[in-house]
Amino acid sequence: MAGPTAAKPKSPVETRDPAAIAAAIAALTAAFGNRIVTSQSVREQHGNTLTWVPNQPPDAVVFPQTTQDVQQIVRICADKRVPVIPFGTGTSLEGHINAPLGGVSIDVRDMNKMLAVHAEDLDCVVEPGITRKALNEQLRDQGLFFPIDPGADASLGGMAATRCSGTNAVRYGTMKDNVLAMKVVMADGELMTTSRRAKKSAAGYDLTRLLVGSEGTLGIITELTLKLSGIPEAIASGVCPFPSVDAACKATILTIQSGIPVARIELLDALQIKACNAYSKLALPEVPTLFVEFHGSDASVAEQSQRFGDIVADLGGGPFDWATKAEDRSRLWQARHDGYHAGRRLRPGASAFATDVCVPISRLAECVNATQREIAELKLVAPILGHVGDGNFHLTLLVDMDDADELKRAKLLMERLVELALSMDGTCTGEHGVGQGKMKYLLAEHGAPALAAMAAIKRALDPQNILNPGKIVALS
Amino acid sequence: MAGPTAAKPKSPVETRDPAAIAAAIAALTAAFGNRIVTSQSVREQHGNTLTWVPNQPPDAVVFPQTTQDVQQIVRICADKRVPVIPFGTGTSLEGHINAPLGGVSIDVRDMNKMLAVHAEDLDCVVEPGITRKALNEQLRDQGLFFPIDPGADASLGGMAATRCSGTNAVRYGTMKDNVLAMKVVMADGELMTTSRRAKKSAAGYDLTRLLVGSEGTLGIITELTLKLSGIPEAIASGVCPFPSVDAACKATILTIQSGIPVARIELLDALQIKACNAYSKLALPEVPTLFVEFHGSDASVAEQSQRFGDIVADLGGGPFDWATKAEDRSRLWQARHDGYHAGRRLRPGASAFATDVCVPISRLAECVNATQREIAELKLVAPILGHVGDGNFHLTLLVDMDDADELKRAKLLMERLVELALSMDGTCTGEHGVGQGKMKYLLAEHGAPALAAMAAIKRALDPQNILNPGKIVALS
Repeated sequence: MAGPTAAKPKSPVETRDPAAIAAAIAALTAAFGNRIVTSQSVREQHGNTLTWVPNQPPDAVVFPQTTQDVQQIVRICADKRVPVIPFGTGTSLEGHINAPLGGVSIDVRDMNKMLAVHAEDLDCVVEPGITRKALNEQLRDQGLFFPIDPGADASLGGMAATRCSGTNAVRYGTMKDNVLAMKVVMADGELMTTSRRAKKSAAGYDLTRLLVGSEGTLGIITELTLKLSGIPEAIASGVCPFPSVDAACKATILTIQSGIPVARIELLDALQIKACNAYSKLALPEVPTLFVEFHGSDASVAEQSQRFGDIVADLGGGPFDWATKAEDRSRLWQARHDGYHAGRRLRPGASAFATDVCVPISRLAECVNATQREIAELKLVAPILGHVGDGNFHLTLLVDMDDADELKRAKLLMERLVELALSMDGTCTGEHGVGQGKMKYLLAEHGAPALAAMAAIKRALDPQNILNPGKIVALS
Repeated sequence: MAGPTAAKPKSPVETRDPAAIAAAIAALTAAFGNRIVTSQSVREQHGNTLTWVPNQPPDAVVFPQTTQDVQQIVRICADKRVPVIPFGTGTSLEGHINAPLGGVSIDVRDMNKMLAVHAEDLDCVVEPGITRKALNEQLRDQGLFFPIDPGADASLGGMAATRCSGTNAVRYGTMKDNVLAMKVVMADGELMTTSRRAKKSAAGYDLTRLLVGSEGTLGIITELTLKLSGIPEAIASGVCPFPSVDAACKATILTIQSGIPVARIELLDALQIKACNAYSKLALPEVPTLFVEFHGSDASVAEQSQRFGDIVADLGGGPFDWATKAEDRSRLWQARHDGYHAGRRLRPGASAFATDVCVPISRLAECVNATQREIAELKLVAPILGHVGDGNFHLTLLVDMDDADELKRAKLLMERLVELALSMDGTCTGEHGVGQGKMKYLLAEHGAPALAAMAAIKRALDPQNILNPGKIVALS
């Protein structure tokens, strides 16, 4: 067990310190035995990154089983001034789990239990390693579900840490709206409870929302209280082609303005539809297309579908292809979720990079059209799909990494996409998060005073800079 | 204009400093002329407090007209190490606007403009002094409204600063869910933008949610971007008596579990109904009663009302009294909003103190019943009304301030109410905020690590402790 840290210097760790790391690994090995792993393959897997950012593996991976284990790991590492990087399923997209200063990856896969379900309160308490699908399987018998669906079968801890959202966010919100409270191990190993289980509170600073989206840089989540929703009595899904991106976006705006509580409304551009047709054996017209879903009572779903149909017809969209059977619906949304993999098949052998931006919905069509023009001008291949109800869209950029000129053009596209979004009062990332990949855009997005506030908060809560350093805000 | 503050000491201001205050008032008078007021009556009005907390007036009140004015006031006060206390309409309930260390009240009443409405994006940009009713009047022509309704005609800046909610929160959320972005003057006079206008973002720490509910202790809000909703096509309101608090709470739980998107669901206990009957000339049965409202399309409102009616009948509630005409609906909700004034009339001459707690909804009936027992045992008069869809309820405690024993019993009730709520995983305040009145409960509610994190954040963003000091977290 590590000693008290009070006497240690509180200056931030800024470089990799091999001696400190070796000492921490020795102490962790004494405490955790075969639950600490230092093999090359496991380390590389835990620095896994799906971006341009090169893999920077941690020096060791520890597998805690309890909150107390996490506290002990953090205390040891705080004592030795060694970074700790929380790890869920490794599906983050911007180098969130890399270890640029080395250190210890804390993989919470064994902390995957459902601790309580409070059906009357529509909430549950879980450990951070439970995945979205496992959670929903355990809730199904009680007629409940957790609505946030980022596509990947991510861990709930990771989903909270990255403030993820996904297809259902237009109706159910993002992780910021669906986490009621958390237990978080702080930089000194103390365990903080961010809030109570009451549905709302005005009792002080909103630590829950501060921690959601902090990407492991302010604390390590070891327990989450989540808001749940009742499984809808009725669900209707459909696919609707449009003559243009503008028409599809206009339909989305009118749907939301009309107060139709659409549960999902997803835009796939013509190229993305072509990719999905090939990958998922569909035969959709290769034009801009909305995938939609309505939740509610039978009567309400029928009314929503009818009203949406009227909007679509006015804009020259359709005909609608409704998936009424559960298995057709699953097939449809599986195709949507496989959009990334489908995109990759457009150019076998190429590397695929996913990125996202989000703009006010009134600017969405303009932003998507401008992006498509940039892609064509730069002679790149990049299908687009988006959570258009929120003004959020993704590119899957397919790049031949051996072609230096193409790589240069691809990087240019990324820059221009962010510039475009910021020029429209948008954000450099709607849901993927900052990680390492998007740090360079935060100054342009937020301005110096906001970035200074973020750095001040980071310094205040992690004076040694050991919590996932080198992500979100640079301290040096 | 104040000079740079970098050379000044950054230690926190802990006591009232008359010389510093005099110097700040002189500098402010030079800059703002007759827009700074030091008369006794205006000062007392700006320390106005509707709680037990005694009035602690500021030394001066300044009326800025622009964000730049606020920056200049803060820079002058930062330079002199003098507290600044933002003031909206003075309707906060826990001593939020008192000046325990003296200083300058910044009254934003002249910063009350609507700056932009983006109807397609369902958002608008406003100055902080605009009130809820003025805002909704300006939005009505466009078929839009801002749903948060705390009862009082509060300013939007104050509503954000206290994370207020109210009757519509069960459907539309609280201020944390309805503020997209803010401009905030920080402790050094710099202007921070918390976020962009995009509907969601994962780009760094959630400064918007950190500032919402921070009660002026981290920065002074000078502009807000608000989420708007479409005015519902149809609205149905009704009043429904129940045989017991338990039955009314059970009906609420089942309504929410069934996914009926109730817009308001308010419990008034028998004593509160008696008070409302007398004050608002109603003739309701004096039993526990739910006031409800449904929003949606005609068909959806009819379906919601029908389904709610079925739940009520199963629990022995009813008969329902529906207010179908707009004027009947207004009268009904006016009576609900006048609940506080009605309560006061139960005991003319007594002082009235409003307090609130919030618990998980499954514990609500138990909490209300136990509170009623405490009120009876302590021989006090305190009608109860609550936003029961959120598990949140209010007491209006009517106290003869000349009766020392009664005052003692009343204070005991307040303590017991909070203890009770905390023992049920609830919070010491669902929507009134901390101010001075509820600071003493935060340690029991959040625990030492969370309180330490709040204090660290406060110190990091306001090292001189000049932003509304003595609220939320004590630094000494």
